[in-house]
Amino acid sequence: MIATTPPPPYYAVIFSNVRTDVDEGYAEMADQMVSLAEQQPGYLGHESVRDGLGITISYWESTEAIKEWKANTDHLLAQKFGREKWYSAYKTRIALIERDYGFER
Amino acid sequence: MIATTPPPPYYAVIFSNVRTDVDEGYAEMADQMVSLAEQQPGYLGHESVRDGLGITISYWESTEAIKEWKANTDHLLAQKFGREKWYSAYKTRIALIERDYGFER
Repeated sequence: MIATTPPPPYYAVIFSNVRTDVDEGYAEMADQMVSLAEQQPGYLGHESVRDGLGITISYWESTEAIKEWKANTDHLLAQKFGREKWYSAYKTRIALIERDYGFER
Repeated sequence: MIATTPPPPYYAVIFSNVRTDVDEGYAEMADQMVSLAEQQPGYLGHESVRDGLGITISYWESTEAIKEWKANTDHLLAQKFGREKWYSAYKTRIALIERDYGFER
C-alpha cells in the first residue's frame, strides 16, 4: 500500500480533497483515473486514503510527465466534473521529493 | 481540514505508514506529536488521514525547520517507539512544494 518508488529525486502530486455528497459517477471515475495514470509515461506509483479528508499522492519521474497527465483528455473531463459535482474543496501541490527513508519489519 | 499554507516554495514531510495491532500509547503519542509540531519554529500546518494506510503530511518553512523537528527529543522517542511497537512499515519523504493551486465552493 506504501508506494515503491526509485531513489530521489522524483516528483509527487499531492491532491488533498473534501467530497460533496454527490456519489454519481465518482467511484467509476476514480478507478478509471488510476488505470489511466498507470499507463501514463513517467508514472511511478500512488497512495490514496480517505476518512473525511481524502489524500491521494501520485509519484512521477518529472514535471513534464505531470504536465502531460494533467492535460490528458479524460483526466481534463474528470477535473471538470470534479469541480462541478464531486469535490467541495481541493488543493493540489506539486512537489520535488528530495530525500526519503523508510522502515519495514 | 485541508491545510492553509503560504504561497510556494515551502516544504512538506510526507509520512506514509501502516500500523501494527499494538494500540498501547499510540493515540496519546499522536496527539502529543501534533501539539509539539505546532509549537515548533517553521511549522505551517498538517493533514492526516488513515484508512488502513495512514498518510500524515506536515508543512514547513525550510529544511532547517524539518531537521530541528526530527531532532526534537520527545519526537525522537516517538520515532523509536514507532519502530518498536506502532508501525509495521513506513516511508518518509522530504519534499519541496514548488507549485500549488486549489478550488473551493
